[in-house]
Amino acid sequence: MVLNKRLVTKVLCAVMILVGFLMLLPCAVSLIYGESSVAVSFAVCALPMIVLGYIALRLTKPPETNSLGLRDGFFIVGSAWLVLSVLGALPFVISGSIPNLADAFFETASGFTTTGASILSGVAGLPMGILFWRSFTHWVGGMGILVLTIAMMPALGIGGQKIMRAETTGPSMDKITFTFNDTARSLYLIYTGMSVIETALLMLSGMNLYDSLVYTFGTVGTGGFATMNNGLAGYSVSSQLIISVFMMLAGVNFNLYYLCLAKKPGQALKDPELRCYLLITFGSTLFVMVMLLLKNQAAGIFDSFRLAYFQVASILTTTGYSTCDFDLWPLPCRMVLMLLMFIGGCASSTGGGMKVIRVMMGVKIAGRGVRRRLHPTAVDPVKIGGKIVPEHITRSVGEFLLLYIFVLLAGTVLVSIENADLMTSFSSVLACFSNIGPGFEAVGPTLNYGFYTAATKIFLSILMIAGRLELFTVFLMFTPAFWSKK
Amino acid sequence: MVLNKRLVTKVLCAVMILVGFLMLLPCAVSLIYGESSVAVSFAVCALPMIVLGYIALRLTKPPETNSLGLRDGFFIVGSAWLVLSVLGALPFVISGSIPNLADAFFETASGFTTTGASILSGVAGLPMGILFWRSFTHWVGGMGILVLTIAMMPALGIGGQKIMRAETTGPSMDKITFTFNDTARSLYLIYTGMSVIETALLMLSGMNLYDSLVYTFGTVGTGGFATMNNGLAGYSVSSQLIISVFMMLAGVNFNLYYLCLAKKPGQALKDPELRCYLLITFGSTLFVMVMLLLKNQAAGIFDSFRLAYFQVASILTTTGYSTCDFDLWPLPCRMVLMLLMFIGGCASSTGGGMKVIRVMMGVKIAGRGVRRRLHPTAVDPVKIGGKIVPEHITRSVGEFLLLYIFVLLAGTVLVSIENADLMTSFSSVLACFSNIGPGFEAVGPTLNYGFYTAATKIFLSILMIAGRLELFTVFLMFTPAFWSKK
Repeated sequence: MVLNKRLVTKVLCAVMILVGFLMLLPCAVSLIYGESSVAVSFAVCALPMIVLGYIALRLTKPPETNSLGLRDGFFIVGSAWLVLSVLGALPFVISGSIPNLADAFFETASGFTTTGASILSGVAGLPMGILFWRSFTHWVGGMGILVLTIAMMPALGIGGQKIMRAETTGPSMDKITFTFNDTARSLYLIYTGMSVIETALLMLSGMNLYDSLVYTFGTVGTGGFATMNNGLAGYSVSSQLIISVFMMLAGVNFNLYYLCLAKKPGQALKDPELRCYLLITFGSTLFVMVMLLLKNQAAGIFDSFRLAYFQVASILTTTGYSTCDFDLWPLPCRMVLMLLMFIGGCASSTGGGMKVIRVMMGVKIAGRGVRRRLHPTAVDPVKIGGKIVPEHITRSVGEFLLLYIFVLLAGTVLVSIENADLMTSFSSVLACFSNIGPGFEAVGPTLNYGFYTAATKIFLSILMIAGRLELFTVFLMFTPAFWSKK
Repeated sequence: MVLNKRLVTKVLCAVMILVGFLMLLPCAVSLIYGESSVAVSFAVCALPMIVLGYIALRLTKPPETNSLGLRDGFFIVGSAWLVLSVLGALPFVISGSIPNLADAFFETASGFTTTGASILSGVAGLPMGILFWRSFTHWVGGMGILVLTIAMMPALGIGGQKIMRAETTGPSMDKITFTFNDTARSLYLIYTGMSVIETALLMLSGMNLYDSLVYTFGTVGTGGFATMNNGLAGYSVSSQLIISVFMMLAGVNFNLYYLCLAKKPGQALKDPELRCYLLITFGSTLFVMVMLLLKNQAAGIFDSFRLAYFQVASILTTTGYSTCDFDLWPLPCRMVLMLLMFIGGCASSTGGGMKVIRVMMGVKIAGRGVRRRLHPTAVDPVKIGGKIVPEHITRSVGEFLLLYIFVLLAGTVLVSIENADLMTSFSSVLACFSNIGPGFEAVGPTLNYGFYTAATKIFLSILMIAGRLELFTVFLMFTPAFWSKK
């Protein structure tokens, strides 16, 4: 293995320093709410990280070269999310809020990967500072994945962007050239702007500042950690609607917001993935709405729409908030929600899952297979939005979808070893791997992952990271080829 | 659409005459057992079919050409299985054994597709002639699929074999050239020989002739219809072992038996699909065995082996017989059985499912996707048994696997509309589509499909036919391209 060890070390030290600084915010929140012991917990984690990280950064010799290979890039990305999850878990343990280390690791990985799966049976009694940190990790994780996929990879020159773009075939950015700083600045602007607007709107709808911030973090990061045991059921309908709209916005390809900034909103609206995303939302909402009305699970058309739309938006964008216990809904509704769990948000959004564009291509690939029987020699390329998708991209997407399915099936077998119910096992794996959060049955929206053994919790945490980093990065690190010398 | 209508009509008339003649056998069985009214039911179905079929065959004008296009081939294959299932259902209805037409259609489609799913809550009281016909359809269906995939398609010159072989990449038959007659004769020989040997062995193990024949039909066709309500639990261990060995033999690529006939058994044993098939059987048996022992579900090691091996062989080959209620086994065991339901038998066997070779290739395709991240431009072809698989074949297999998954998911949503339990809905779709028979929960090995509405029964029957004919044939008939004039 010829990792650029010094540069990798420097980047990971920088991550450690970053986590330290990030913890100062919940530390301040704790002080504001008079939770001095919690504030101390954050401080005893944050300060050593900053100091040690700085010392390690200075002690590391300058790298021979500043260029990173593909291998370095994958290693940094994979280990950065792991380091984030381990270091971020320390305040939970030290403050005594989540004394078990495996539990704290699960919760933090769930936070930074914007999954929102929890091992806590109730959050109502926890310190404000701790709950703030928990939700803040969503916001950081959401920003992290955007910077990673859109800005940082090409800036580091490791071709990550090339791979991501090749797979996602999002709107072509060729005509709008950004440098790293430009891209990152625009991202900060869009992401922070979106957060500020949502926080303001939530406050207008009657939430206090603290709750508004926490739910904004969970929404724009498509995370899903809440501050109440019954999710969003206790908040006003207007708050719920604001959150559902912003969940949808966070699930859109952020490149489209660039297009809007570049004064090309028309081009953004023509994006085939966006149209498909809206179509899926509309169709699923309608189906669930009708089913809820037929089975008398909603009080009238508006109530039915409100429940259906919120849950569809929440699950499709892989956020995971709920305004009611959807696990009590009729089976066809739950089945539709489960299909949405596979799909996930758009490419280059903060949402997880397979991504809308890949599912679109998967359906077209399968359809081509049917047609090819009739015309075995015909040239029949897959088209998205009228444009031909190069064959190496359809192949790459096919590989991704197959790997996704295999991981889901194999993961379910592994998790089933300790459990006695298929729906729980399968939906645990799906909800963690697709970064959703709640599943069905024993991990339904009103329940949690606390009953699993430490081994399963760690396995599910790794699945969250693998899902967040789109599989390949994490799985690569388990292949011999990755560690081979040549 | 430019179907060669006259030739298609003639082939379908021939199918009708064939069904008529086939019914004379259960008619004779009914007479032997003194069930005269049942014998009459068979006679009033068989004779008009033979006579009308013959008249229609003579009245149809000779086709302008004897060549069949791809379209004709697909149409004939798809409609032949449909015609078989409709005509074959008539004796059940007329004799009053299964008075409902949708039920009878389901049962017969299940028979001819060698699925073995039943709508009957008990079979013990049914006439001997009826049960004989029910199981005989397995034998005919198994022979039919072999003749179709191995012999008839290339003989008709419609390139079916080319497609099948391209997908399956079974052992190369290039060096052994068969004409249609040669191939068909060898097939009759192997299939009938296998049936005679199994019948003889079963009789030696203590079964009577009737039962031996019925279980032989169910085994070599990988069907699974039984004559007892509790499956094979009431028969001797030696009978169970004989059946499990012959299920495994029926799940092997029949081309390998040709190789043995051509005195090349060494080449047959080197077949990578066969080795993988045996490895899956061995690994799954071991896993289930250990689990059963750990959870105290078996009386000692041999008992555990017997139960595990029989069920693994039965599910992997998509036969569906059971020696106990495996739906009561621990979840990990049921999960492994469910994975085996996806896989199915080898290509060009009587088994259903995705087929071992396609799953092997799917795993390798996904693995290549992981490696390609590290070496984006490297040429990295998929290899099976050390040989490079051409890229158009891996693409075709990828398309097949994606379509398979989509059909399973969409089918589950449809079936879930009337049901209240995910495991039942999903395993109904999987067990019918992969031609297995029993599923889990409400369609478990001791239960049946009788509770579904007629619409769902017909939907599941079409899934059985679609699965039997490897998807594309049936789905093609629903595409506009198939019916377009050009």
